[in-house]
Amino acid sequence: MKGLVCNNGKIEVVERPKPTIQEPTDAVVRMLHTSICGTDLHIIKGDIQTAESGVVLGHEGVGVVEALGSTVQGLQVGDRVVISCMTSCGSCRYCQRGIPAHCESGGWILGNHLDGTQAEYVRVPHATRSLHRLDSSIDARDAVCLSDALPTGYECGVLSSDVHSAGSVVIVGAGPVGIAALLTARLKNPEMIVMVDLDDTRLEKARELGAHYTINSGSPDAKKQLLDLTKNEGFDSVIEAVGISATFQLCQELVAVGGRIANMGVHGKKVDLHLEKLWDRNISIHMSLVNAISIPSLLQQVKEGKLDVNSLVTHHYSFDEATTAYATFGAASTHQALKVGLDFGVQE
Amino acid sequence: MKGLVCNNGKIEVVERPKPTIQEPTDAVVRMLHTSICGTDLHIIKGDIQTAESGVVLGHEGVGVVEALGSTVQGLQVGDRVVISCMTSCGSCRYCQRGIPAHCESGGWILGNHLDGTQAEYVRVPHATRSLHRLDSSIDARDAVCLSDALPTGYECGVLSSDVHSAGSVVIVGAGPVGIAALLTARLKNPEMIVMVDLDDTRLEKARELGAHYTINSGSPDAKKQLLDLTKNEGFDSVIEAVGISATFQLCQELVAVGGRIANMGVHGKKVDLHLEKLWDRNISIHMSLVNAISIPSLLQQVKEGKLDVNSLVTHHYSFDEATTAYATFGAASTHQALKVGLDFGVQE
Repeated sequence: MKGLVCNNGKIEVVERPKPTIQEPTDAVVRMLHTSICGTDLHIIKGDIQTAESGVVLGHEGVGVVEALGSTVQGLQVGDRVVISCMTSCGSCRYCQRGIPAHCESGGWILGNHLDGTQAEYVRVPHATRSLHRLDSSIDARDAVCLSDALPTGYECGVLSSDVHSAGSVVIVGAGPVGIAALLTARLKNPEMIVMVDLDDTRLEKARELGAHYTINSGSPDAKKQLLDLTKNEGFDSVIEAVGISATFQLCQELVAVGGRIANMGVHGKKVDLHLEKLWDRNISIHMSLVNAISIPSLLQQVKEGKLDVNSLVTHHYSFDEATTAYATFGAASTHQALKVGLDFGVQE
Repeated sequence: MKGLVCNNGKIEVVERPKPTIQEPTDAVVRMLHTSICGTDLHIIKGDIQTAESGVVLGHEGVGVVEALGSTVQGLQVGDRVVISCMTSCGSCRYCQRGIPAHCESGGWILGNHLDGTQAEYVRVPHATRSLHRLDSSIDARDAVCLSDALPTGYECGVLSSDVHSAGSVVIVGAGPVGIAALLTARLKNPEMIVMVDLDDTRLEKARELGAHYTINSGSPDAKKQLLDLTKNEGFDSVIEAVGISATFQLCQELVAVGGRIANMGVHGKKVDLHLEKLWDRNISIHMSLVNAISIPSLLQQVKEGKLDVNSLVTHHYSFDEATTAYATFGAASTHQALKVGLDFGVQE
């Protein structure tokens, strides 16, 4: 089978043996669609120390169950499934404490330590918890967003920052995960959602998708404009979706008394925390790898028409065009891209 | 009446008119005992910008209700009461959201904007919520800790860091508020409480009061010793009770995956936040002014003998010895002092 690997900082399609069931908890999935995550770019750049050399990339995707281990529950061969970006056993102490992102025999392993989803087939360990049946009403190409982007926006952004109906929300960063936070924040019906980015095209998209206001953070009085929207009180829920010092700083300046900051950005450097200004403001700062436990509930919202998954994958390529797809995603702003999908061109 | 004020960085006892009821929600309290808080020292040093010049100091104390406004509920003249360090109306948007620390017509006002408790009498606004009847079984001298230190340790430390029965707790700083966190953490019966300080005498006191382990942070391998206690996994609940960069740094190094850091320290400077190491660890950092809403529940724990309030006030002075009392508290380590009390020498 064909699979995509990173070789000395470049991606290439290589031939690999088709995976087989190795443990009774495994499934093998024939891939229909996959997508590229910012983390994949980090692997290519060499930023992810844990990523094993030569591993097939990818932790997002939708496919059809090809084979099942003897103890897998709730799935049948032929089922269309969303693959969770987080693999979890359900029984280790982290899973039991509700943090499957740190599962002792799972977590983020696909496309990191184990061959991932950017291949014609993938072996998924702990399939019972790591695969989710996809309702026939949901388009498989769009559903790749449910592997990682949407649960990340929802769990690490919306839930961590406690978005609620009486509250105000600001999302700093209108990339795929920021937009995922916007789409899932709307499920909570907050009073105001404001989106911040440097890119006016992304902000326009955010307005189309339901942001009540957008502010370009390059404008010299951006902070004042933002605080004015809250009558100078700050936002109840502040979501950081970039991962650099300047945006985390802005989040600290925007949070209201009693508010919460949720960090979704992948940071490469330390940041300043202004405890001298914040210590008495009754706020909290949350940071997390996605547990991806919200996938079933998000799937239900999609089925009921309450959550839009059509808007996140802006570009589709065939698997053979993977190099172009990576280049497009790597220069997402130029291409006005959010998520970039790869299609295997096979029948469901 | 006599009251203690700060005059050009020095404290002095001055003569003031006895306060009277000004609003129907007021009470006037005849003071029995008061105590000195670290914040009082900050006022004297000029660190607290909000503190009004010439105001009577103090936001902690126990007294007897001398007069009541017409709308005060649940209190009678002659009641022995604990004065909450936080004054709250109960009806503004912050009170309604459960953050009375930021009450629009209250919060920390006593000894800050309004004449405080280091005087023979004090006017307490919003008395219904800001005074708590003291059971006759509880010694009034010890109960001064219930105004601020114990609710701060409990709410800003123990509750914010989610101390629970299966968890491990580390408290960095064994001063009055750190010890208050220790005493109230014990109410949650955690598996392990470890206390960290530079002062061996304070650590000895912490062991007497129930810390399972103590580590002197001056020892070169302090961090290793601490992590060894957790089999290198870190602590579920990390409580910062100092307020400087080095201790906040240590807290970041000690927190376990899925854990919480609760900051209780009053910080004068920004700190480094190592998001590059922490972003994926599913942790949160909490910082708050005390709401002091736990005073009734803590009073009940004292009454039931589950919470020790005898240990926090180590030094008692008469009100006439206020200068000596402040000097003792200002050099607390030298004097092996935790809280320092001032007694008005009057009958209950």
